[in-house]
Amino acid sequence: MRNIKLTIEYEGTHYLGWQRQPQGMTIQEALEDAIEKITGVQTAVVGSGRTDAGVHARGQVANFHTESDLAVQRFRGALNALLPRDIVVLDTEDVPEEFNSRFSARSKLYQYTIWNDRIRPCLQRQFCWHVRWALDHDLAQEAAQALVGKHDFACFESSGAETQTTVRTVTRASWDVVEPRRIVFSIEADGFLYNMVRAIVGTLVEVARGKMPPARVADIIASGDRAAAGPTAPPQGLCLVEVRYDEA
Amino acid sequence: MRNIKLTIEYEGTHYLGWQRQPQGMTIQEALEDAIEKITGVQTAVVGSGRTDAGVHARGQVANFHTESDLAVQRFRGALNALLPRDIVVLDTEDVPEEFNSRFSARSKLYQYTIWNDRIRPCLQRQFCWHVRWALDHDLAQEAAQALVGKHDFACFESSGAETQTTVRTVTRASWDVVEPRRIVFSIEADGFLYNMVRAIVGTLVEVARGKMPPARVADIIASGDRAAAGPTAPPQGLCLVEVRYDEA
Repeated sequence: MRNIKLTIEYEGTHYLGWQRQPQGMTIQEALEDAIEKITGVQTAVVGSGRTDAGVHARGQVANFHTESDLAVQRFRGALNALLPRDIVVLDTEDVPEEFNSRFSARSKLYQYTIWNDRIRPCLQRQFCWHVRWALDHDLAQEAAQALVGKHDFACFESSGAETQTTVRTVTRASWDVVEPRRIVFSIEADGFLYNMVRAIVGTLVEVARGKMPPARVADIIASGDRAAAGPTAPPQGLCLVEVRYDEA
Repeated sequence: MRNIKLTIEYEGTHYLGWQRQPQGMTIQEALEDAIEKITGVQTAVVGSGRTDAGVHARGQVANFHTESDLAVQRFRGALNALLPRDIVVLDTEDVPEEFNSRFSARSKLYQYTIWNDRIRPCLQRQFCWHVRWALDHDLAQEAAQALVGKHDFACFESSGAETQTTVRTVTRASWDVVEPRRIVFSIEADGFLYNMVRAIVGTLVEVARGKMPPARVADIIASGDRAAAGPTAPPQGLCLVEVRYDEA
């Protein structure tokens, strides 16, 4: 049995997120449909993790098992011919039988884009959160540093999650002013809880607009209390940039 | 009578271009509708020039006359509250009675984005032309230099135009590899003929893929023959970046 790893870019705007569900189209379903058309066999695609409705990916990773003997590069071409224009497979690779895009993942990098201007975004509107408040970037950057390290991040987990432990290790958290009105928050960790990045961004914006001192973030983490943190930022600013694995 | 200058950003994907027409929605009509809702008076908006269906703008300029005494900054806010999400007014300014966004324009800057990769673009798909051929950027840059100066550009004008002269002065033409797979062609001139930038890009791509030597571009210009130039590149790669005027 072959095991094929996919690296996928998608615009989440018109999907109900990654995971297949009865209410409407998802990225997983679009991929599974395309694979079935190619191989003739109904096939489950395992993603590195779910992304919510409206969330994008530049480097989501997934894998599936198949008996097909189609050359791996041809799989990419065939998938891209069948997939809708807002999903594209960037890479296909034969991987060992035991590779699992979810459980083999070592770390993930997410980026969240904030559009900080009095005027609403237009060309970028599907890819950012429009924040009109004046933001102090030094305060946000200071608060971001409190995230780095191994912590119990229960305070940033939305209810309804099924995780066994809420301890995660954040290896990098950085608040960068890319253009005067475009801020990109980057965060890398060994894993993320449900809605964790969006809850963190909502909290950092509270800090940046002066509603909360940067030192409060460590207290919020220690409290484990979701109500102590800021609101959940909207989905369209979020993008799964990369999923990292050990070298084969 | 006040004369108000607008600087406008829009995504052209879902419009039949700038100019009002019976077949469907245009940028001009959307702006005129919004102004009428604010002032109660049907008002003509004059644009610096037309953009075609699917063409975008980061800095289109237009103006309109009004008796309204609404503060100019409030006009911006009111327009942006009424306009659809794919059009935004970046700036509103009171200008002298005689200012005309079309006839007062000194120069325009267009950019055209090419996505040069075997794999189709996804997140950027509405904003580029996907070119799969291998491109030689030095050849394209050399050919672009033949455009600079005062020339009769009839060879790059699509039929159906109503211009009196086809002589234009190009002050800058540059083919830049922004990322390995993203090329931006920038061109500034005192004016452009109908479809001129798209015909130029179609021709430069012929050069870059080795179908035509760079020196041929000067011959094509001298010939004045549209059939001698390359095909018209598709609209979605094109963006009107800036319209320049003399200082008031």
